[in-house]
Amino acid sequence: MKTDSKLGAALKSLIVRADEALARSLPSEDTAPFELHRAMRYAVLGGGKRLRPLLVYAAGHAFGESGSRLDAPACAVELIHAYSLVHDDLPAMDDDSLRRGRPTCHIVFGEAMAILAGDALQALAFELLAHDIELGVAPARCVEMLRVLGRACGAEGMAGGQALDLAAVGRKLTLAELEHMHACKTGALIRASVRLGALAAGAPDDALAALDRYAHAVGLAFQVRDDILDVEGEAAVIGKTAGKDAAADKPTFPSIIGMEASREHLARLTSDALEAIAPLGEQAALLEELARYAAARLH
Amino acid sequence: MKTDSKLGAALKSLIVRADEALARSLPSEDTAPFELHRAMRYAVLGGGKRLRPLLVYAAGHAFGESGSRLDAPACAVELIHAYSLVHDDLPAMDDDSLRRGRPTCHIVFGEAMAILAGDALQALAFELLAHDIELGVAPARCVEMLRVLGRACGAEGMAGGQALDLAAVGRKLTLAELEHMHACKTGALIRASVRLGALAAGAPDDALAALDRYAHAVGLAFQVRDDILDVEGEAAVIGKTAGKDAAADKPTFPSIIGMEASREHLARLTSDALEAIAPLGEQAALLEELARYAAARLH
Repeated sequence: MKTDSKLGAALKSLIVRADEALARSLPSEDTAPFELHRAMRYAVLGGGKRLRPLLVYAAGHAFGESGSRLDAPACAVELIHAYSLVHDDLPAMDDDSLRRGRPTCHIVFGEAMAILAGDALQALAFELLAHDIELGVAPARCVEMLRVLGRACGAEGMAGGQALDLAAVGRKLTLAELEHMHACKTGALIRASVRLGALAAGAPDDALAALDRYAHAVGLAFQVRDDILDVEGEAAVIGKTAGKDAAADKPTFPSIIGMEASREHLARLTSDALEAIAPLGEQAALLEELARYAAARLH
Repeated sequence: MKTDSKLGAALKSLIVRADEALARSLPSEDTAPFELHRAMRYAVLGGGKRLRPLLVYAAGHAFGESGSRLDAPACAVELIHAYSLVHDDLPAMDDDSLRRGRPTCHIVFGEAMAILAGDALQALAFELLAHDIELGVAPARCVEMLRVLGRACGAEGMAGGQALDLAAVGRKLTLAELEHMHACKTGALIRASVRLGALAAGAPDDALAALDRYAHAVGLAFQVRDDILDVEGEAAVIGKTAGKDAAADKPTFPSIIGMEASREHLARLTSDALEAIAPLGEQAALLEELARYAAARLH
């Protein structure tokens, strides 16, 4: 798959690792129900930045874990992300026909199958994560990880953020409201990714607050960059329709605070993220690289 | 809410218990995102037979547990059931406007919000179940329960069954194919309900196989009864459009094997279920009552 030139070799190899783990985790196209399995694989395996799995691996690395315990949480967060995109693209939601440079899931498989594929991907995420216990994650930790994922996906997290997003179309939002919406819609799963990696690696409780601050800043930075790219980018590079947010009258950082202030905000968020993980030193190198990548990525 | 005259006092009081636990578990209508929370509560709290929570409680009772450890699994399976109905009723799926005698979720809240409410309900089910650890369920058991629920909801379970159902419209199915579809679409969650109750109650592993046989038979019996009611029932009593399956050219037990053979099949499934739990004796009284109810219910 196409990777961003801004990513270093270690992260690129972790993308390959995530892709392989995802391909293994998804049900085979050769078993029934075929069409559902095909739709699930199509939704997940068509590329993508794999930011969330990378955050799981990077957070795990920061606490000395680089093994297979990280694969299940890495896959789980990407399955959740992929399902949210499938549902988000539906005609009743954003009605998007292009995603990652390909026709969206409901265009290829029909609406009903896209709804089901999303539903099944969410269930698979939890099922996978519950298998992490077999790799030596302590049972109580495993339960905590499942709780973290559940909360991140639900009404207080991603689904809630999407509801706020729906309610925001055509309305004027303040910067605080926009940030709150993104902190739920995409931020909750990004924070969960970092936390799951840390929990799977047995990170001490007192490190989790700093990681949360990091993840919150990276999540917002990623979104500010997204909004900037939506204005500046080209469909061929970003893999989706450029200028779409403005056309849909969606509130964005540039539309609320302007392009210049958006760039400054992005820089500030990146400093915040780096400052939060500074005490971890060398071992947080991958987390640091991801924070820089979120702010500078080209698509 | 309206309860079936075929249900005894103990099960009726457990319906009240389930309803109260569900009302407590769902996010408040007084907190944002309001519309999402309203849609979630509307989808879950509008009555319903509560068969799945009852199976959780009944299975727990059979192993000496009648306390609050059963509330989370009871709520979890009902949240999953409710979300599946919301998505199933969508225009792209069954396109139904009446459910439990009221307008369906997307009629009241719009399609986008109905999709999100379903998504959030699924996440909440897993989050709730992960909290059972706080009530003294052993962590490893709790992880097992989460895995059971995940598998029951996904491509091998409920979502897979719905995909098979979609593929079956307008096709001639054999009895075996029809039973396989139902064993996934509704049976997987019914089997999970019984298993979750038993696991939360600390049932020994060797009891689980008998419970599975019971649950498989009850699940199918429930569906055969559903198909019979669809032919014979009146919308006012069954709370949804009667004759809908035939109108939609959906394969049903009566359409494949005839009404008389469907009744005999139902009786055989009920015997199977009762035989499976016979070794448990008196303590399985609620499970026994539910098996009889599944076969004789009026709506």
